[in-house]
Amino acid sequence: MDLSVSMSYVDDEKFVLTNRSGNNLLVDMYKEDEKKHLSPMELLLSALTSCAAVEIVSMIKKRRRDFKDLKASSIGYRVEKPPRYFKSIEIKYFIYSSDLTIEEAERFISLSLDKYCSVGATIRKDTIVKHDFEIIRD
Amino acid sequence: MDLSVSMSYVDDEKFVLTNRSGNNLLVDMYKEDEKKHLSPMELLLSALTSCAAVEIVSMIKKRRRDFKDLKASSIGYRVEKPPRYFKSIEIKYFIYSSDLTIEEAERFISLSLDKYCSVGATIRKDTIVKHDFEIIRD
Repeated sequence: MDLSVSMSYVDDEKFVLTNRSGNNLLVDMYKEDEKKHLSPMELLLSALTSCAAVEIVSMIKKRRRDFKDLKASSIGYRVEKPPRYFKSIEIKYFIYSSDLTIEEAERFISLSLDKYCSVGATIRKDTIVKHDFEIIRD
Repeated sequence: MDLSVSMSYVDDEKFVLTNRSGNNLLVDMYKEDEKKHLSPMELLLSALTSCAAVEIVSMIKKRRRDFKDLKASSIGYRVEKPPRYFKSIEIKYFIYSSDLTIEEAERFISLSLDKYCSVGATIRKDTIVKHDFEIIRD
C-alpha cells in the first residue's frame, strides 16, 4: 500500500503537510525559543518512537498483561558534517504494568523496533538504534 | 547537535510527541476515514519533503530568483512484507517563479534531496528517492 502527502509553503521555514484523509501537520525550522512545531528531524525521531510504541502496546495486550501507560524518551545523535544524519538513536520506554516481566518487555521492544516497525526498517543500516526500558509497577 | 523528543500514550493507536521547546505533535494509526493526524510513515514522508523544501527555497533566494510559492506532492511505495519500509519515494515540487531556469530548479532540488537534507541522508541506501518538478510562471 502506498502513502502520499502534499505540501504547501507557509513561510521560508514553515510548511504544512496534508495526508490523503485531509489531516494536517505543520512543521517549522525556527530556532528553539521561537518554535511552534516540530522540525523534520524531530518528526523522524517521533515517527520511529511512536511506530514501535503501537506494536509494543499491541503485544502487551495480546499477551494479556496488565497495561496502564507507556511513555518514551528518545535522543537522536547526528554526525557533525552536513547532511547531519542520525548516527545513533537511543529510545527508552517506560511501561506501566503490574505483571509484565523484564524478559517480555525486552522481547516486545526488540521485536517492535527491529522487526515490525516500518519506520525503523526505512532508516539506514549503519544508524545504531539502541533501546532501554523501565517497568513501573504502581 | 543532538535532538530529543518525549512520547506519551493517548490510546492504543494514538500518541503525543513533545520536543525540547515544548511543541506537541499528535500521531495516530487509525483507518483512513477515522484519522485525525498523520501516521508514523506519513511523518517520515513529510519530514523528507519539507526538509528538502527549506533548502530549495533558501537556494532560490540566495540565487536572487523570483519566488512566489512552493508546493509538493509525495508518494511513498512500500514493500509488501512487514516491516513494510519504503522501497521508493517520488517527490514532485511545484515552484512558482517568473525567472528560475529549469537547470537551476533541477540542481537546487537534487542538491537539497541528495546532499543537504538530513532526513534523506538518514534513509536506507536502497530506498530510491526520485524527484520531478514543474515551474509555474504566472
